[in-house]
Amino acid sequence: MSEKLKQFIDKNIPIIDSEMNRIVQSLQMPKSLKDAMLYSINAGGKRIRPLLVLSVLEDLNATSKDALKVASAIELVHTYSLIHDDLPCMDDDDFRRGKPTNHKVFGEATAVLAGDAMLTLSFQLMASLDNTSPEKAVRLAKLLADAAGATGMVGGQILDMEGETTRLNLEQLENVHMHKTGALLSFSIEAGAILADADEDVFGYLKEYAKHIGLAFQIKDDILDVTSTTEALGKTANSDASSHKSTYPALLGLEGAEQQLLKYHDLSIKNLSFLKKEQPLLELFANYIMGRLA
Amino acid sequence: MSEKLKQFIDKNIPIIDSEMNRIVQSLQMPKSLKDAMLYSINAGGKRIRPLLVLSVLEDLNATSKDALKVASAIELVHTYSLIHDDLPCMDDDDFRRGKPTNHKVFGEATAVLAGDAMLTLSFQLMASLDNTSPEKAVRLAKLLADAAGATGMVGGQILDMEGETTRLNLEQLENVHMHKTGALLSFSIEAGAILADADEDVFGYLKEYAKHIGLAFQIKDDILDVTSTTEALGKTANSDASSHKSTYPALLGLEGAEQQLLKYHDLSIKNLSFLKKEQPLLELFANYIMGRLA
Repeated sequence: MSEKLKQFIDKNIPIIDSEMNRIVQSLQMPKSLKDAMLYSINAGGKRIRPLLVLSVLEDLNATSKDALKVASAIELVHTYSLIHDDLPCMDDDDFRRGKPTNHKVFGEATAVLAGDAMLTLSFQLMASLDNTSPEKAVRLAKLLADAAGATGMVGGQILDMEGETTRLNLEQLENVHMHKTGALLSFSIEAGAILADADEDVFGYLKEYAKHIGLAFQIKDDILDVTSTTEALGKTANSDASSHKSTYPALLGLEGAEQQLLKYHDLSIKNLSFLKKEQPLLELFANYIMGRLA
Repeated sequence: MSEKLKQFIDKNIPIIDSEMNRIVQSLQMPKSLKDAMLYSINAGGKRIRPLLVLSVLEDLNATSKDALKVASAIELVHTYSLIHDDLPCMDDDDFRRGKPTNHKVFGEATAVLAGDAMLTLSFQLMASLDNTSPEKAVRLAKLLADAAGATGMVGGQILDMEGETTRLNLEQLENVHMHKTGALLSFSIEAGAILADADEDVFGYLKEYAKHIGLAFQIKDDILDVTSTTEALGKTANSDASSHKSTYPALLGLEGAEQQLLKYHDLSIKNLSFLKKEQPLLELFANYIMGRLA
């Protein structure tokens, strides 16, 4: 990771963490619910979405006093989706990032409700932006809902579940990812652009950038799944094949997946030329996604 | 039920039903998700919350082209809460209103996601009110989130779960209900008042009305639980006592609960005198809640 990006991340993660804790602490609610929400908020998320919001503002030389609130709202949506995803009736995961999942610690009922509360809180935040015009707040809330709900992330989770039992072609696989993970990543970029009062041209470039790093991110995930496990155990390829889980390496081969990753990386970077900047943070982010080891 | 209220309900339920169906049908999403959402939307809800929104407008001699959208948003929040409530990890109910619950038909994973999608959709609607100022839309979204989330309904569900294993006093019991069911009922009244551009005095009276019919509604529920089951089987009183589930009749006796119901009914009606109207719909609603048989 470049030194500039590293400094940016190291500076902002504690700020994001403390803002999210402040928000939840400020609300009056039953202690067990607050504990469950704070547990997942503080479970070691990489804060990629909030960092993207802040990066857009920095790259556009803009600031917004509501940026952290909006960034936190997006991370709450991401965090709720992980809590619900981990439930026994969904992916049934006992651990996430090395820690017991929310329902393992607080029970399933509380985990469902903590997720519901986080999703609701994200809109509570969008409707309490003190330094943003109501017009912009409504636009942000609408785009967040589009990205998070049936038309976006939740729809993508359904597609992903259905894709587990059928082999998808490339177009279908990209459709799953553009909904399941792409929509909220894209919204992070769009939210930064809206807070920065970006004009429609800039908004368009950034949307294209966002779309392609979203896909690059997912391809890299799929590649890491194969290569790191193959090195370690040589097991994943078989389990992937037997479960018929569609992945980029399964569809394109490992080399084909690498090429596709390169292509999307280039397409994302290309859309940043309007910035006329050396080393914009968004480019460093794209490079980081390309090269990341886990 | 009075003839006036009956006519109002019979006229508006089909309108509310068709608006909710129209909204979900208009969204692009996976078929299985749409089916699951439409199943619970069309599972025979009494539409009390949407009807309250419309009643406030009618009693205030006001109209709003966005009333149906806001009313639908509230009903979506109510419907999602029932889907999640019925899950095996929560109340584990196989039937609701005589029909199999959402997860019995579509599976638990889809039921969780259908609920998530409905909650998100409610805010999608609040952020797409075409005939309402952004200031009002933001106020509505904020109040809906306050009423639905950790500070409202979800918080109340946690309190209710915790109350199942301890005996609550009257104050604690009212606190549970004011959060679990009262917050969203109150918001229905407040939303109508906001859409009608009610001044702060009127808003205050209606909030008081809402608070007391919310509590009356719950007391009547508790009373019906005892009386209808006692008549039928003579079982409930025992199961209530053994589960230590706190109810108004358990705390106050059946007669005491009836008196409390009467008191809250009167308090709610008293707050409608500012309307200077014969038979306001909201008064007929309060009477209906008092007298309902199921």
